[in-house]
Amino acid sequence: MKESRRTFLKKISTLASVALAGGGLGSSVFAKEEDIKWDESWDVVVVGSGFAGSAALCEAIDMGVKTLMIEKMPVLGGNSAINGGAFAIVGSPHQKRKNVEDSYELYVKDIKKAGLNLNQVDLVETIAKNGYDAYKFTVERGVVYRDDLGHFGGHSVPRTIWPEINSGGKITIPLQEYAQQKGALIRTRVIFDDLILSNKGQVIGIKVRENYDFNYNKSVDEEDNKSGVAKFYRVYGGVVMASGGFSYDIKFRQEMDPTITPDLDCTNHYGATAYTLKNLMKINVQTVDLNWIQLGPWGSPDEKGFGIAPVFAIPAFAYGIMVDARTGKRFINELADRKIRADAILKINKNPDGSLTHPVVICDSVGATGTTKANVYRGLHKNVIKKFDSIEELAQFYSIPYEGLKKSIDNYNSYVKSGKDLEMGKPFFKLDGKVVDISKPPFYAWRALPKVHHTMGGVKIDIEARVYDKQNNIIQGLFAAGEFVGGPHGASRLGSCAIPDCIVFGRIAAKNAAQRSMQVRG
Amino acid sequence: MKESRRTFLKKISTLASVALAGGGLGSSVFAKEEDIKWDESWDVVVVGSGFAGSAALCEAIDMGVKTLMIEKMPVLGGNSAINGGAFAIVGSPHQKRKNVEDSYELYVKDIKKAGLNLNQVDLVETIAKNGYDAYKFTVERGVVYRDDLGHFGGHSVPRTIWPEINSGGKITIPLQEYAQQKGALIRTRVIFDDLILSNKGQVIGIKVRENYDFNYNKSVDEEDNKSGVAKFYRVYGGVVMASGGFSYDIKFRQEMDPTITPDLDCTNHYGATAYTLKNLMKINVQTVDLNWIQLGPWGSPDEKGFGIAPVFAIPAFAYGIMVDARTGKRFINELADRKIRADAILKINKNPDGSLTHPVVICDSVGATGTTKANVYRGLHKNVIKKFDSIEELAQFYSIPYEGLKKSIDNYNSYVKSGKDLEMGKPFFKLDGKVVDISKPPFYAWRALPKVHHTMGGVKIDIEARVYDKQNNIIQGLFAAGEFVGGPHGASRLGSCAIPDCIVFGRIAAKNAAQRSMQVRG
Repeated sequence: MKESRRTFLKKISTLASVALAGGGLGSSVFAKEEDIKWDESWDVVVVGSGFAGSAALCEAIDMGVKTLMIEKMPVLGGNSAINGGAFAIVGSPHQKRKNVEDSYELYVKDIKKAGLNLNQVDLVETIAKNGYDAYKFTVERGVVYRDDLGHFGGHSVPRTIWPEINSGGKITIPLQEYAQQKGALIRTRVIFDDLILSNKGQVIGIKVRENYDFNYNKSVDEEDNKSGVAKFYRVYGGVVMASGGFSYDIKFRQEMDPTITPDLDCTNHYGATAYTLKNLMKINVQTVDLNWIQLGPWGSPDEKGFGIAPVFAIPAFAYGIMVDARTGKRFINELADRKIRADAILKINKNPDGSLTHPVVICDSVGATGTTKANVYRGLHKNVIKKFDSIEELAQFYSIPYEGLKKSIDNYNSYVKSGKDLEMGKPFFKLDGKVVDISKPPFYAWRALPKVHHTMGGVKIDIEARVYDKQNNIIQGLFAAGEFVGGPHGASRLGSCAIPDCIVFGRIAAKNAAQRSMQVRG
Repeated sequence: MKESRRTFLKKISTLASVALAGGGLGSSVFAKEEDIKWDESWDVVVVGSGFAGSAALCEAIDMGVKTLMIEKMPVLGGNSAINGGAFAIVGSPHQKRKNVEDSYELYVKDIKKAGLNLNQVDLVETIAKNGYDAYKFTVERGVVYRDDLGHFGGHSVPRTIWPEINSGGKITIPLQEYAQQKGALIRTRVIFDDLILSNKGQVIGIKVRENYDFNYNKSVDEEDNKSGVAKFYRVYGGVVMASGGFSYDIKFRQEMDPTITPDLDCTNHYGATAYTLKNLMKINVQTVDLNWIQLGPWGSPDEKGFGIAPVFAIPAFAYGIMVDARTGKRFINELADRKIRADAILKINKNPDGSLTHPVVICDSVGATGTTKANVYRGLHKNVIKKFDSIEELAQFYSIPYEGLKKSIDNYNSYVKSGKDLEMGKPFFKLDGKVVDISKPPFYAWRALPKVHHTMGGVKIDIEARVYDKQNNIIQGLFAAGEFVGGPHGASRLGSCAIPDCIVFGRIAAKNAAQRSMQVRG
């Protein structure tokens, strides 16, 4: 048995060494089923355990098929677990309670505007129309949302909701628990290596490595990590690729966009590499938009990774201003989309000697109530957010010319009063029924530095979450969802649109994989 | 003066080391004009000396502005000089003489079909509508076309013409001579390094290195070649980037498409690297479609580089058949587009042990008259094309089962007779008024192995050849044309559509650059 496994692996490596350019789906393995010694069999295998994977897991198990989720890391959840949990949908009870008028068309329009109109529009429409159902799906499976409605940058109206606390883990964990209770199996430390294809190019299984040891040393390419034990899983229905983006793959992200240099910090978990994506690219899977990599404008130089700044940034940008610390002047609409804000910060933050002067974001004590007290406390405790009794103190602390800052705040307050931001065109929204200016101490502030946050590119899918090869043919048995997919967000993803994307397409992918399983098995 | 140059270069390298991600056009140099010691000044500088560059040079000098062409290699012409000279246009005298009905719409449709509909359509339409003018433009500047009309794979009708001999040099050289006679200057061994931008992000000049020594050792990345002497050229009107594709950049092409492995041969000249493209990507110039890299299906394993096979392939594919040497059976429409044919070859040519069995393309003595006698002679002389008195001999030479091959030829001849290819759906066209089957000895044959030929991706332009940055803004003073541009050809470029693309957009780019010069200088 060991010998036959070794022979098989030899065959894989022989074939993989042949140039497979363009020649149909050139998997590492075009296998005859009888040649393979399968270790296990499944109807649906979900690769990745974030929003998309967790939604897929629920959908597949609800359809009554034998379902496995694999996660290469020792912990579940990927980026979703450390994400802020912001979820933008049209028609939530939250919008209704606040009489916010919204529409699918407006939602699509906002996403396309942020994406510089490079979006694959049918995917955006699918997200818009199925977002509310995705929300209900999570509620029915144990996710609890709090009664807040947020207004994220780039959105025409407030449409963002959150689970109990600002964490995506409050969505992934209930979904995973629900699926496990219904019989789905979840395994950590199992890495996806290769598709096993029939000679017709259909997916019939996967090669994985169990007991995988992820290497947290960022100077080691994941390709070079050979840990774990090879296993072959027969898959009857389909593989749902939901293994996320590659923001923390320092080499690959720079290859795709040379402006994303290694010194840029990243908000993602360490596992966000391009390993899986590159394996599929090698066998001729079609990709789109890999050159579009998003920087989050709400990162802070005063903490590593995602941190607390992005959470506090929500009220700070909505109810405050961002100024150039050299002048005290505003320089961008604080509610513009992520790309516009990140680009604007990176345009002004450099000094002639190469050093950086970080812009400062400021709101007052009323504005700060736009997020929970716990979030404010965490930011202060971590020294990322600072609190000041007066604007003078604040200006002094950050070395901002006081007169310049004072003038910017005075102007801003007059715009708030008139309801029209004459300087930057930022829309104003009420907080608990009141307009909010910057006048009531204490004042809160933090410094902004964009960080690599999201990779817009990935494999190309259709609205049924089916993956294309580079001949524009559908690959039978291969589905994908979430950040692993390219297209819906074009050049830049609008904030709080990842969760609806992941849940909508995770469900579609799993449904189609499960249905295919039933067809195949009769 | 030396000191000031050194200071300037220091500033460049300091700024370049700062992460410039997303922050507007983050050139290596945002310069104050007074800080720079310019070595020279020009209205228009054209980078690259192939079809696009040569057309741009003519157009600019015709507009009476001070024009320079720079070429990093010691010889002019780039890939264009070693290209087959095939030029597809609608409405040529050649089509009229043969009563071929054609239209812009059909031309666009063919290009989009080959491009898997991923094309930037407004660019394709511009090429279609201006192709005939581009042809006339070259005729008026000394290019002589012979009286042949070819039918290239993927085209609905014959629309391909050639200069006197099958070489693009017969187009670039007359254009360059014309422009030089009118006062344009051409310099070889000058490499483009960087744009110099005003603080508004407009192009005001370029940094180049004169006396550049290209390194022909393919294991050395062009980035590491520091030869030459730095110079700064003031540019009033615009820079026309026409420096071609990156098919011979073994590292970069594999980064963009991992199926393009280093073992694949390449039809391009050695200078076809991504050096210039990567420099522009580093300063936030927008790119598209870098993951689409074309293999030419008409390469031969029996010669290096472009060679003679692609030239002989034109009649051989049109008037003959391609068979799997293991069976003698046809496996693809020999006039399908390049991608379909290359993909089909790579799908069948691999043996289980990793070795390759090359398919064989066969036509008879009448079919071979579809190209010049000189071309046939060159192919025979180089041992790339083989000549046989009988099909038996041919089958024996290539170890093709005779019965299988005989049956394929008999079937094919019956399809030619009936006018309908029942097996592969190949369209039949007459040669000198006669239908052509495979029956008149001697028989000609060659073996096919796809080679890396064309990179579809490049910088993003609009129909005025203006280049976009990653904020979707036009970069003032930067124009691009030819293979350096991405978009018109989508996933795969249709054969003989490179020359019209290059000449049409080279002219547009130069016209706009020259006009801008007149506006700027008043």
